Amino acid sequence: MDAAATLLEIEAIKQLKARYCRYLDTKQWDAWRELFTDDFVSDTSASGGKVIDGADEFVAFLRATLGKPAQPTVHQVHAPEIELTSPTTATGVWALNDVVRLAPGVNLNGYGHYHETYEKIDGRWRIKTSELTRLRMDVFNPLFTVRISDRLRSTGVALARRFGR
Amino acid sequence: MDAAATLLEIEAIKQLKARYCRYLDTKQWDAWRELFTDDFVSDTSASGGKVIDGADEFVAFLRATLGKPAQPTVHQVHAPEIELTSPTTATGVWALNDVVRLAPGVNLNGYGHYHETYEKIDGRWRIKTSELTRLRMDVFNPLFTVRISDRLRSTGVALARRFGR
Amino acid sequence: MDAAATLLEIEAIKQLKARYCRYLDTKQWDAWRELFTDDFVSDTSASGGKVIDGADEFVAFLRATLGKPAQPTVHQVHAPEIELTSPTTATGVWALNDVVRLAPGVNLNGYGHYHETYEKIDGRWRIKTSELTRLRMDVFNPLFTVRISDRLRSTGVALARRFGR
Repeated sequence: MDAAATLLEIEAIKQLKARYCRYLDTKQWDAWRELFTDDFVSDTSASGGKVIDGADEFVAFLRATLGKPAQPTVHQVHAPEIELTSPTTATGVWALNDVVRLAPGVNLNGYGHYHETYEKIDGRWRIKTSELTRLRMDVFNPLFTVRISDRLRSTGVALARRFGR
Repeated sequence: MDAAATLLEIEAIKQLKARYCRYLDTKQWDAWRELFTDDFVSDTSASGGKVIDGADEFVAFLRATLGKPAQPTVHQVHAPEIELTSPTTATGVWALNDVVRLAPGVNLNGYGHYHETYEKIDGRWRIKTSELTRLRMDVFNPLFTVRISDRLRSTGVALARRFGR
Repeated sequence: MDAAATLLEIEAIKQLKARYCRYLDTKQWDAWRELFTDDFVSDTSASGGKVIDGADEFVAFLRATLGKPAQPTVHQVHAPEIELTSPTTATGVWALNDVVRLAPGVNLNGYGHYHETYEKIDGRWRIKTSELTRLRMDVFNPLFTVRISDRLRSTGVALARRFGR
């Protein structure tokens, strides 16, 4: 592959991970499912979680755990190190900052890295494996959290759809 | 357009948004104004704000609202999804984390997404529209905030100018 | 240089800075040292620090200051503005969010910018100079911090090595 084709694949994988975060945090579960290979494996055991085998199982678990409107989540990813290992396979490391509501007034602010593999199937990149490691996990209680209504939160979904995403 | 030309435009738009954040947070208002089309529209109504029509009006509003040295702001943007829709137009979604001082000891830590359009005029990309949606807005009070003096804050401006930006 | 070659160098410099953060926060000091030119100069005087001359001196200082397992650090970098100034030299500005433990229960959450120069030596980009400016520095005390054991923290190092990084 030449330089331009390689960079185009790297950019596509960066946008795949951007959509992973955006669809997860805006709770677009059907669109989110499409980002994974069927045999996707998630391993968060190094960060206090577990291994989940299968994209359907993973999406069902996250949806049950974080799917309620009263459970806002934030996943922001940074400084990707993407490497193509063949025209249809790649590896990547991403820095992560995530904010998750654990209970009323109790929130987690976490920092770590995703270590991932990707596969291009039918012309589209998907996430094949993802392992999460942690640098810090802080539990905090803000003075208060401004409630974002479901209607306002879904504005982002509507906006993205207007632009064809 | 071929792959390399497309990627070069995407990189230029990424750097446009990087400068948007940097000029805003270092309060370089004249340089900031140059990043927008004259007919720029900002819509923060889904995040508790309003619609502002016109780049001059937008810059004047932000300058009046956040322009004082005692009002430090932080805007950090992540995981861009940029798509060219023609050689001179593009759309983009960016994750945002912003920190704004509301009052002494009271600060906002916000998370959301910018949904934007861009236009290339006279060979340079500019931001044409920007709509902000929110995932979370936490109000917090740090133990204390180290005061960054105006002189030290402007060091960043001087450094950037030395490198010709 | 054509567009594709330029973009390939910019991507390589982005990944260099990504490794800077990851090796620093996972305390891989020998690998970290390899990212700098021998005559590297760090200047954090605008952020309350000092000038350190020489890569060996810089790595030794950081290792002594932040090297203990009980001193977790987070450095996350955003929105790079990389510009090639010749086929083997470049400049860059990065937004930074860093979290550092100052004392038990007392932590710093900082925001600012790195202003850097890079040099390509023997086919590999290295950081030649780095100056840090600040927007905000908040001192905070979380409710509590989940302790990440050394074993778990080093999982990230093992994972990255499995993928050949």
